[in-house]
Amino acid sequence: MSLADPSTVEAEVPSGLEARRRQILQAARACFSRWGFHGASMGQICAEARMSPGALYRYFPSKDAIIEAIASDEREMAGACMAELAGEGPLADRIVRTCIGYLEGARDPQTGGLMVEICSESLRNTAVGQRFHEVEGTVRQAIQTAIEDGIARGEVDPRIDLAIVMTILFGLGDGLMMRLQLDRDVEPASLEPYLLRIMRMLLREPLQ
Amino acid sequence: MSLADPSTVEAEVPSGLEARRRQILQAARACFSRWGFHGASMGQICAEARMSPGALYRYFPSKDAIIEAIASDEREMAGACMAELAGEGPLADRIVRTCIGYLEGARDPQTGGLMVEICSESLRNTAVGQRFHEVEGTVRQAIQTAIEDGIARGEVDPRIDLAIVMTILFGLGDGLMMRLQLDRDVEPASLEPYLLRIMRMLLREPLQ
Repeated sequence: MSLADPSTVEAEVPSGLEARRRQILQAARACFSRWGFHGASMGQICAEARMSPGALYRYFPSKDAIIEAIASDEREMAGACMAELAGEGPLADRIVRTCIGYLEGARDPQTGGLMVEICSESLRNTAVGQRFHEVEGTVRQAIQTAIEDGIARGEVDPRIDLAIVMTILFGLGDGLMMRLQLDRDVEPASLEPYLLRIMRMLLREPLQ
Repeated sequence: MSLADPSTVEAEVPSGLEARRRQILQAARACFSRWGFHGASMGQICAEARMSPGALYRYFPSKDAIIEAIASDEREMAGACMAELAGEGPLADRIVRTCIGYLEGARDPQTGGLMVEICSESLRNTAVGQRFHEVEGTVRQAIQTAIEDGIARGEVDPRIDLAIVMTILFGLGDGLMMRLQLDRDVEPASLEPYLLRIMRMLLREPLQ
């Protein structure tokens, strides 16, 4: 890459800023995982990111701004997972690929720990919880629409109880995300055939 | 009930103490759910229990003593769930009944919220997390032994991957416990036929 090329020079300045921004967000995730959103202080985040408060505040004026940036990242990652959902093949396969993508993404102990903190915030219905609940809402809506489309084109049994299917699907996703943090020797990909069978069963005829 | 009956007089004194003890533990669960084990203070627990610090300290000398009492209660409740496991009928049915019993018990928002805090402590591997992890360990061991017994008497396919089955089973249990806190309109009992089908599938031949 040549410094004389103006297109790359322009691109490099924001990428340096972006790298520093990433470094702060990674440090913040670690601190939030360890001490919770309320427990972690800006001082701890500065120490984890090895930056002075003055330097860090130029990127994020407050802890809320950091939380908002993490929520945006999560929305973006959710969007990437959703791309799997919009792909080719049977619906059960696409939902399971989306789920495995989510579990692989949450394999990092810091991200996984953060997910539990987010869940805790959602249950307490705090402002932070509501923010992340919105992100989950878009994923939930996308999956529900995909199942409804599956019913419309005859791939999914119209008699399924959609509320129960969604509860089991999201319960399984969240629970496995947490569980894979504790059972470190189980690889997300090894769950795929089991999840496929469960998902196919959920989209078949309802049970008495 | 006659006051003159010495057997009831004797029984009433500890039951009064026990009622007060229950009241403190219930208040502590609410506070831990709301603010976490570290975040909640003895002052907040006193306020929630409507007791003076002096009165409360006669029952529990420290927050650690309260946490220990909650862990003992959880161990007792786990024992009650395990009684279902030791009952009659096919193993899949018994495991699902155990799971539904757990979900019904965690339906109370305070208990459910506490479970998420416990999970958070387990992931951080704190002293509190380790204490509750021990309780879970006994449940885990009981279910694993029941499955191994099922294999020994030919009810369960010997080729199943026990580690994966346990991961999915506990992931589903924890995830549904959390999810039922958010999806308040789904009754635990309505999940039973779905969980039964999933459990029967998990105990059948392994998947490629």
